[in-house]
Amino acid sequence: MKKGIFITFEGAEGSGKSTQIKNAARFFRRKDRSVVLLREPGGTKVSEAIRAILLDKRNKKLSDATELFLYLAARSQIVREKILPALKKGKVVICDRFEDSTLAYQGYGRKLPFALIRDMNRVVRGTLKPMLTFVLDVDIRRGLQRGGRYDRIERESFSFHQRVRSGFLKLAEQEPERMTVIDGSRPLPEVSRLVLEKLKSVFG
Amino acid sequence: MKKGIFITFEGAEGSGKSTQIKNAARFFRRKDRSVVLLREPGGTKVSEAIRAILLDKRNKKLSDATELFLYLAARSQIVREKILPALKKGKVVICDRFEDSTLAYQGYGRKLPFALIRDMNRVVRGTLKPMLTFVLDVDIRRGLQRGGRYDRIERESFSFHQRVRSGFLKLAEQEPERMTVIDGSRPLPEVSRLVLEKLKSVFG
Repeated sequence: MKKGIFITFEGAEGSGKSTQIKNAARFFRRKDRSVVLLREPGGTKVSEAIRAILLDKRNKKLSDATELFLYLAARSQIVREKILPALKKGKVVICDRFEDSTLAYQGYGRKLPFALIRDMNRVVRGTLKPMLTFVLDVDIRRGLQRGGRYDRIERESFSFHQRVRSGFLKLAEQEPERMTVIDGSRPLPEVSRLVLEKLKSVFG
Repeated sequence: MKKGIFITFEGAEGSGKSTQIKNAARFFRRKDRSVVLLREPGGTKVSEAIRAILLDKRNKKLSDATELFLYLAARSQIVREKILPALKKGKVVICDRFEDSTLAYQGYGRKLPFALIRDMNRVVRGTLKPMLTFVLDVDIRRGLQRGGRYDRIERESFSFHQRVRSGFLKLAEQEPERMTVIDGSRPLPEVSRLVLEKLKSVFG
């Protein structure tokens, strides 16, 4: 049986993650791999209930710590209920956001204690790590425009989104083997080509 | 203005917490104190939504880590939205369950990493600590019978509930100044008297 592959896509809303996830899925399906597409927070009944709390615009009072723990709760559930079982069956799991988002948004963005978030994420995911993570980097204003949605997180200040963006870049510097930064502001065919080139270089 | 007072009640379901919380509330109201009664998880719109996920019998697949993070999320919210503002106004806040429940149930009961739960709880509550915590200790079978409810947690194994019970007792041994263990299996008037005696000794 084939070995499971776990890949994540990170970056701001509107950075083009969804399009590139479809691109990556096509790459693996052409190789006759079974692909599972997931998004965070969500993907399980419990995690979708948590997602609803997190994205509800009316929850303006949601504290930073509450937000952090809700993301970790949603992730703990999707890891055990979906990601690990799919990888065990030899599937390719592509996830829209994962641990790096928590480090970028709640660590760098909200300035919650970084080392502790890393420790907590170890409880969340155990030994599971993405083999490959794409960071789609775009200018903040452009990302917010493209994203089009207007949920609780996106109403944050510009400086918050700046800290998140540079947070992703710092994370990628620390783990260049796993994390590939792609300039998401280039024309779409070029972004798609860069993603495919990376996939080919790793998975042949 | 009077100084805020934060008191918690801990123990298994059916240990008589609700009755003793009313008893303690009467004690403070007779002293013309304004009393706020809260229960965990819950007490805010967000925390009640989290409570619904936690107690839903259909969520059989809820992972131990998910459960832990949901409790921490609910607590983070009630601390900031309810407990701290009430204490600031000089009120007496009496809470049905708090940090010790997480240490007893998720730490001792589920055997999740204890030191990490302590660190996480510091993110949850900052410098806030109960001035006084009552642990109502009862025989497990009796507690479950009295509790009457039959939610997700109470369907756990007998050995789980044993670990939780002895967990509470260990916590109380470590912090005898803050935590008072009361034998909840004694006749009700006696239990109430013991609670009142302790309150009088601390608050006059």
